[in-house]
Amino acid sequence: MTVLMSEMTWDEYEKKVKDSVIFLPVGATEQHGYHLPLGVDFYQIEKLSELVAENVNGIVAPTIQYGYKSQPHSGGGQIFPGTTSLSAQTLILLVKDILLEFIRHGATKFAVMDGHYENKMFLAEAIDLVLKEANRDDIKVVKCCFTDMLDEEVVTKLFPNGFPGYDLEHAALIETAMMCHFYPNLVHKEKIISEQADNLPRYEIFPQPEGIVPNSGVLADPIHGTAASGKIIIENLVKNYVEMIETEF
Amino acid sequence: MTVLMSEMTWDEYEKKVKDSVIFLPVGATEQHGYHLPLGVDFYQIEKLSELVAENVNGIVAPTIQYGYKSQPHSGGGQIFPGTTSLSAQTLILLVKDILLEFIRHGATKFAVMDGHYENKMFLAEAIDLVLKEANRDDIKVVKCCFTDMLDEEVVTKLFPNGFPGYDLEHAALIETAMMCHFYPNLVHKEKIISEQADNLPRYEIFPQPEGIVPNSGVLADPIHGTAASGKIIIENLVKNYVEMIETEF
Amino acid sequence: MTVLMSEMTWDEYEKKVKDSVIFLPVGATEQHGYHLPLGVDFYQIEKLSELVAENVNGIVAPTIQYGYKSQPHSGGGQIFPGTTSLSAQTLILLVKDILLEFIRHGATKFAVMDGHYENKMFLAEAIDLVLKEANRDDIKVVKCCFTDMLDEEVVTKLFPNGFPGYDLEHAALIETAMMCHFYPNLVHKEKIISEQADNLPRYEIFPQPEGIVPNSGVLADPIHGTAASGKIIIENLVKNYVEMIETEF
Amino acid sequence: MTVLMSEMTWDEYEKKVKDSVIFLPVGATEQHGYHLPLGVDFYQIEKLSELVAENVNGIVAPTIQYGYKSQPHSGGGQIFPGTTSLSAQTLILLVKDILLEFIRHGATKFAVMDGHYENKMFLAEAIDLVLKEANRDDIKVVKCCFTDMLDEEVVTKLFPNGFPGYDLEHAALIETAMMCHFYPNLVHKEKIISEQADNLPRYEIFPQPEGIVPNSGVLADPIHGTAASGKIIIENLVKNYVEMIETEF
Amino acid sequence: MTVLMSEMTWDEYEKKVKDSVIFLPVGATEQHGYHLPLGVDFYQIEKLSELVAENVNGIVAPTIQYGYKSQPHSGGGQIFPGTTSLSAQTLILLVKDILLEFIRHGATKFAVMDGHYENKMFLAEAIDLVLKEANRDDIKVVKCCFTDMLDEEVVTKLFPNGFPGYDLEHAALIETAMMCHFYPNLVHKEKIISEQADNLPRYEIFPQPEGIVPNSGVLADPIHGTAASGKIIIENLVKNYVEMIETEF
Amino acid sequence: MTVLMSEMTWDEYEKKVKDSVIFLPVGATEQHGYHLPLGVDFYQIEKLSELVAENVNGIVAPTIQYGYKSQPHSGGGQIFPGTTSLSAQTLILLVKDILLEFIRHGATKFAVMDGHYENKMFLAEAIDLVLKEANRDDIKVVKCCFTDMLDEEVVTKLFPNGFPGYDLEHAALIETAMMCHFYPNLVHKEKIISEQADNLPRYEIFPQPEGIVPNSGVLADPIHGTAASGKIIIENLVKNYVEMIETEF
Repeated sequence: MTVLMSEMTWDEYEKKVKDSVIFLPVGATEQHGYHLPLGVDFYQIEKLSELVAENVNGIVAPTIQYGYKSQPHSGGGQIFPGTTSLSAQTLILLVKDILLEFIRHGATKFAVMDGHYENKMFLAEAIDLVLKEANRDDIKVVKCCFTDMLDEEVVTKLFPNGFPGYDLEHAALIETAMMCHFYPNLVHKEKIISEQADNLPRYEIFPQPEGIVPNSGVLADPIHGTAASGKIIIENLVKNYVEMIETEF
Repeated sequence: MTVLMSEMTWDEYEKKVKDSVIFLPVGATEQHGYHLPLGVDFYQIEKLSELVAENVNGIVAPTIQYGYKSQPHSGGGQIFPGTTSLSAQTLILLVKDILLEFIRHGATKFAVMDGHYENKMFLAEAIDLVLKEANRDDIKVVKCCFTDMLDEEVVTKLFPNGFPGYDLEHAALIETAMMCHFYPNLVHKEKIISEQADNLPRYEIFPQPEGIVPNSGVLADPIHGTAASGKIIIENLVKNYVEMIETEF
Repeated sequence: MTVLMSEMTWDEYEKKVKDSVIFLPVGATEQHGYHLPLGVDFYQIEKLSELVAENVNGIVAPTIQYGYKSQPHSGGGQIFPGTTSLSAQTLILLVKDILLEFIRHGATKFAVMDGHYENKMFLAEAIDLVLKEANRDDIKVVKCCFTDMLDEEVVTKLFPNGFPGYDLEHAALIETAMMCHFYPNLVHKEKIISEQADNLPRYEIFPQPEGIVPNSGVLADPIHGTAASGKIIIENLVKNYVEMIETEF
Repeated sequence: MTVLMSEMTWDEYEKKVKDSVIFLPVGATEQHGYHLPLGVDFYQIEKLSELVAENVNGIVAPTIQYGYKSQPHSGGGQIFPGTTSLSAQTLILLVKDILLEFIRHGATKFAVMDGHYENKMFLAEAIDLVLKEANRDDIKVVKCCFTDMLDEEVVTKLFPNGFPGYDLEHAALIETAMMCHFYPNLVHKEKIISEQADNLPRYEIFPQPEGIVPNSGVLADPIHGTAASGKIIIENLVKNYVEMIETEF
Repeated sequence: MTVLMSEMTWDEYEKKVKDSVIFLPVGATEQHGYHLPLGVDFYQIEKLSELVAENVNGIVAPTIQYGYKSQPHSGGGQIFPGTTSLSAQTLILLVKDILLEFIRHGATKFAVMDGHYENKMFLAEAIDLVLKEANRDDIKVVKCCFTDMLDEEVVTKLFPNGFPGYDLEHAALIETAMMCHFYPNLVHKEKIISEQADNLPRYEIFPQPEGIVPNSGVLADPIHGTAASGKIIIENLVKNYVEMIETEF
Repeated sequence: MTVLMSEMTWDEYEKKVKDSVIFLPVGATEQHGYHLPLGVDFYQIEKLSELVAENVNGIVAPTIQYGYKSQPHSGGGQIFPGTTSLSAQTLILLVKDILLEFIRHGATKFAVMDGHYENKMFLAEAIDLVLKEANRDDIKVVKCCFTDMLDEEVVTKLFPNGFPGYDLEHAALIETAMMCHFYPNLVHKEKIISEQADNLPRYEIFPQPEGIVPNSGVLADPIHGTAASGKIIIENLVKNYVEMIETEF
């Protein structure tokens, strides 16, 4: 049986909602270089949510496909055409409204699945507002960005020459690998170029100056992103997410 | 080549955005009886947008999958588990933010594709705010709910015994037919029941009293909703949408 | 004794508030052709509220004289000088604040009397927010636009050649008739012209193009709007409103 | 010819709007003792606006009949049933929306006519936001509470035993006098009682404690409020308002 | 031991918070003539809060150093460089958030110490919203502007030739005197000039016209503001504040 | 001459504002263990701003003393008494209002000095909104958290046994060292305890469970935080900040 809420009828959903963990995938529509599509952030987190939910009898809510504004240091910034972002207030209200609806339906267990680094603090605010407004003591929410859930050993193996850090892992090895596994036909392998963001100052500059991120939008080298490594990453993530759900609920 | 923005890379999108009509499908997550899934409103409008965009070289933005609160007279109301809605302010800000981003990318032609009756006025407000904030005279937006686009002759043929009106066409013949065509495996044909909302007063009552809509959530008879009639409906809609785009842009 | 809250002293109001239905008339300041004044929408609903309240021992709160933005398909649109409208957020907050105050005073029974089609969904949102914020189970609100309350038989009699539909009944027969009865000296009979909106597409276009509504702002023929038909309309409306109040409270 | 916008047709309004001063009366719905009705603050400022507009060929917009929350030191506070107030955000947005609409119509000269002391700062904020949003240099707004416009000589004559100050002039001599002149049938002369707020501390206390204002809601003695003194007050106010308009526009 | 919250560790604060009055000083960053610094409004109210808190075992929260927009009649208006103000919504939310946090910590007794006349109504709104949101009956807040707390006898002595009124006491005798006492090194005595605002109309004009306030920004004569009179003022204020706290808590 | 805006008169400020970099320190009021006071985050960033401004002829605006909600992984979370935080919307509006005021004064160069990790994204949003609203191309803003500005060599020297990472550096070595240098009398050396957050899961849990952070609120060992290391840290920071200002402006 499906774990996707959108595929359930209301009475099927009603039977599961009180006991299930509700997964809310939150992605973004954001440039991912010349070789990956704009939907990477929500494609990935939607798929991951589905895989985890299948293991824990969860429900996956319709994915939020727009996220917070891209920052130069983590997503290349708003200067790329196609990067389509929400302002802080909008994203906070959006997530807040949706979670409060699930609570009204009887849900009490939530996993907010973040697929876009810039969403982090706005999701935290939304959840905090939800807890205040719901004013109940039986609601529990876990939340993380998928990059928090990858084991260090796995990263070490994937990057034998050293890991450049999650911030620069934008349209880079990890995302390329995962997309090669999830949606190989959406990856333009011939357009993958070796790239490294070298001009980023340690502080932020507004408005974003030209040239501080590579023209492609890729922040670190995606060359070694393959379906095989994608499979390793995804299996590790799913294992850890499932463990999180089993530990917390 | 794909018309889906989420499947394009940013440079592919950049090449098309200035000349293309951007389609923004706006749906809802809402009960649709025992036989249709919660995602009907966004599944349908997403598919329709795609079919129209293919005919006019458009771009389909990621679908907004949550809409305004269900009203008893048009969607059965908020009392059904699974109906997951946004407040007015959230929906307005969401659509406003997204359209302003496309304008920033260089887009000037928009079709806001409404798949959920209750969204109507909030989309109008969002578009009005966008025009004020953009403060330019080269932006044009068309908008309609798909039910506005069906030819009367088609409706007359589909309902030989008389059309109960669009308000009650919730989880009824038209939506059942379209889903049978688009996603037959998501229709539980065995659970279709003949139903008619008879207890709705002509005024609205808050909070929604029990019993004014059928328990199933179906507001009018879906029995004659078939893939064949779905095909007729969809072809008529696509023809009219394409005509709208060609007339206005 | 007066039913107008504004004419009561606070102690007179205090004696009635707990048992009475509070009527909140919500109108608009909007063009109504060359022959009707800008205040039609609030004049009418204020008078109707008063007549109904007198029959059910109600209290009529001060009228909200500004409403939501005029739409081309129902009020001719915002392009007419004099049409003075509120944004969505403002109208929602305004109605919400006022209703919450009445609840604080001890009122539990409300009739939100809508005199302007475009207000509909924003009033629904305001009431929903009030119920959530008040968080009590003894509050009941009924709401409708006055056009919902006219009996079909009456309409059939008034339009022997067929009724063009409520959307186009703007500054047309019904409103002209009601104003001839309520405020004959505010109707410029010599300026009434036969008019019919023929150029409205079935979809909406933003910004509003010139020429899709008649220059006068009248959307359907007002010629047969007389004080006599106004009297018939008003008596029918009052009867039905009174019935609504007696049924629901 | 009428100065009331609501009585004009849109084309009559259009002819005047560019050259006229637009008067926006802002009142309140607030207790005014046992002898004056809840609508005093908007009745008075509406009438005054009309009288002034007639002298300067102005336009009087529909009155805002709800104002900011009553404060114990100036209006007795929110504890009285019938006092029906807006929150800060609502009042600011309401006035802002309305003024921006008039600017869209072509108006550039405004008089915001305040009939309720507590509105003062929120009107200032609304006007400031309007000027920022309109971003033009041909807009001019004057604003005052009517109590600012009364000549000291007049006050001295009306209060031979000394003036208690405008703060306590709530439901007291001045308002009683003006209402006796404007709406004698709404004044319950037999219920006028001599009263003086003696227990108000110089600081404010939240929530408002019982007993710091007289039970009647009257803050200073209304006994000598007569139609004759009302006439004197009103003539003085109108003269000074007209002078203000002539000086500033 | 310190009364400043910012100097306490969290466990020191925890021990005091339930029984102590929390003082929240709210100032402004605003021009104060050629002789006083921009921080006058928050310097003064911070110092006063400290002196009062020391007498009543209170806690002084970190000072809000930005206040509401300066008005010509009370602070010279926004036209002076350096005057750095918050909009209404921001100030209301800021004070509301902070007070709700203290309530979460267990505090129930509050003194909102206003050092800037223009803050008055926005602080009232913030406190009202806090009480509604906290929805408890053990919270008590007192609030006043320091000018409300000065005894008339003291004022009479300080201004033997008559007091021009608090509105014009901006960068004038009282503030100069207090700053000479509190921060003598921040007073440029040589730049004090005798000044009197004579051109202010009794109504307000937007945008602020040039020349209605003195070029210096001083609204009344500061010449006699000395450390000695500052001491008298401050002692009187502290005495009255302490009395307020002892009376109310 | 002072670099503190609050100590300048308006005409002194006016002379400098167009050419100077405006430093806006943004801190927080947050628990910092048993040995450091609640004001650490704003004390430090205020002092650093002052030192940097002195080197580049800047202006330091009054410090924002309240920041975004403390997160368990970086500040111990909101469960500690004394941690007094702003919601997202409030912090964004606050910073936005203040920066827009400086722009109105003629400033074009800004350094937003972040002293509290949790502020990061909300400051980014505020600055983005400011740039959109100002709509000018001569505004430049740099922004960073002070921890971004410390040289790796310095960190390596200070932590010979390995650096636990900035997230856990809360009330730990770096902050203790800086406070020992800046405000030795506010450091309770006798209460410093060796502590390490070991129970933090890699994901976030709402509401915050008991026991995931040490009871003291210290997240990593502060034992080796001395005035001497504080001096090294501060000198390194000031050097790097000055370099940033000189590079960017």
